[in-house]
Amino acid sequence: MTAASTHPDPSAGLPVCVLGLGLIGGSLLRTLHDAGRSAYGYNRSGETVAAATAAGYRASTDLAATLRQASADNAIVVLATPVTIIDDLLPAIVEHAANCLLTDVISVKQAVAESVARLAPGVRHVGGHPMAGTSQSGWTATDPDLFRDAMWMVTTEDHTDPDDWLAVAAIARSAGAFVVPAAAGAHDRAVAAISHLPHLTAAVTAAVGAGESDLALRLAAGSFRDGTRVAGSAPALQRAMLEANGIALLNVLSETIDRLIAARDELRDKGTVEIVVDDGHRARSAYQQIAGAAPLPITGVTVGEPGWAQELRRQAHQAKVWVG
Amino acid sequence: MTAASTHPDPSAGLPVCVLGLGLIGGSLLRTLHDAGRSAYGYNRSGETVAAATAAGYRASTDLAATLRQASADNAIVVLATPVTIIDDLLPAIVEHAANCLLTDVISVKQAVAESVARLAPGVRHVGGHPMAGTSQSGWTATDPDLFRDAMWMVTTEDHTDPDDWLAVAAIARSAGAFVVPAAAGAHDRAVAAISHLPHLTAAVTAAVGAGESDLALRLAAGSFRDGTRVAGSAPALQRAMLEANGIALLNVLSETIDRLIAARDELRDKGTVEIVVDDGHRARSAYQQIAGAAPLPITGVTVGEPGWAQELRRQAHQAKVWVG
Repeated sequence: MTAASTHPDPSAGLPVCVLGLGLIGGSLLRTLHDAGRSAYGYNRSGETVAAATAAGYRASTDLAATLRQASADNAIVVLATPVTIIDDLLPAIVEHAANCLLTDVISVKQAVAESVARLAPGVRHVGGHPMAGTSQSGWTATDPDLFRDAMWMVTTEDHTDPDDWLAVAAIARSAGAFVVPAAAGAHDRAVAAISHLPHLTAAVTAAVGAGESDLALRLAAGSFRDGTRVAGSAPALQRAMLEANGIALLNVLSETIDRLIAARDELRDKGTVEIVVDDGHRARSAYQQIAGAAPLPITGVTVGEPGWAQELRRQAHQAKVWVG
Repeated sequence: MTAASTHPDPSAGLPVCVLGLGLIGGSLLRTLHDAGRSAYGYNRSGETVAAATAAGYRASTDLAATLRQASADNAIVVLATPVTIIDDLLPAIVEHAANCLLTDVISVKQAVAESVARLAPGVRHVGGHPMAGTSQSGWTATDPDLFRDAMWMVTTEDHTDPDDWLAVAAIARSAGAFVVPAAAGAHDRAVAAISHLPHLTAAVTAAVGAGESDLALRLAAGSFRDGTRVAGSAPALQRAMLEANGIALLNVLSETIDRLIAARDELRDKGTVEIVVDDGHRARSAYQQIAGAAPLPITGVTVGEPGWAQELRRQAHQAKVWVG
């Protein structure tokens, strides 16, 4: 039996206030609004707010007024800006909406938790990270179906408040995503490996190809197109994401360099690429096995019972997901 | 004015004999046959031949009989096996079909040219390489539309016979592809950069991700899925392709390692990934500019006129294509 069938969701009716209406925040505002939930947003760009308003959504360029509304509504506030911006937003949240539960959709979790602890220590916060995106950015790229069947990591520490956790997990479920419970540190190491590192290997693969010749780019087909796609994402957004997870990224980057040096030595000294190709094929097969099947649900744990967070994390490390 | 409008294609009516009916060879047999051209094939696997025959194509497991038919037909013979197999096939071609024009669809060009010069020195040969594929292989993956709008490199050396060149280029055009003229060495350096290297970076990216945890693979989304796709190709085919282009691959692999080390040092010492991300973004933009627009045609050269091969190569280095 899973949690939601026995535990009332305390926030099903709470409004959601989204700060930042780019690809992720804008898509979240749209999917929640379209599902009938009260949702509104803030963006500093008048152009974005005008576009959102014209499309029938509630949005404003007035941060203080938006947060005062959130406070009056007891809304859940969602940080949906690049991580480099949140230190500017947190003091305003403390000033105008300190009573609200805070979550975020930012791709690193330790850096966000540290900023919240430093700048908004009295505010309840449960982090989140939807694993969805495109190489496009901004309101014009938003899509209410962006999160459909995506994985949405929700920070799950031993000290996490279970009601707050359920409220944040319910937002992910409302958006159509599966919930992946994890500690902030484990999340950051995982995304360094499967998201941040692929940005660097894509960037370097693109640079070597383009450096060869226009003939090479003319001959480029599927392997180059797919292997370099994320290098096309906005550089400022890539930098903000990768640099906020520097230590975990350094570790996987060093491992990547070691593996490529081993491949070069194998090719130079023995004329083969057997080990690197076989290792890569085995790894891709493991990924396809996990990604290709419907995710298995976490079972046998009720959020809030003793040891719930540890048990959710344990099952998530077996690639299971929480479905409420 | 382009070549085909003034130069009669001497081989429009010649049959085509395809040796090897995997993804590339099988797709070629299907597209030529479906277009009404006489085409037949050989494969050593009875299962593949039975599947091709059942689908209405002419195929045989008898190499000698197939080549004797090609000789009687004055067919163009296409080597469509992994490069590791051709040394076994070339003596049979010399024995049974030495009069036929030979081409190939193999992903390296210098190694093939050397094998032909060594084992079939009297046989006319113009190499080719269609830049198309999927991570699937074998007859069941074949698709007559595989080459539609793809780039098909045709070896273009100073000593290449113009009639033979036109006959091979006409096959590419019949399959729906654009023709990219290049010298074998330039081709091999280009595909090392934009095809073979991406296989290695995909393999290593996959291995690092899978090595982290099942949680990481569960969180993996678009950047990992696309960036590791080609690591799922059959390992034996990847090895045959990469190892036959070892020297060119070593060069781009070393450059890749140097760039990743520079990125690691930048991240460790300055906390940024600015240079690597900006370089990658610029490179991806250059690729998209070339790949995103309809290719410009090579103009002002007639195949066979003095200096034709050099002029075709010169324009191909500007990313132009030959359209006949």
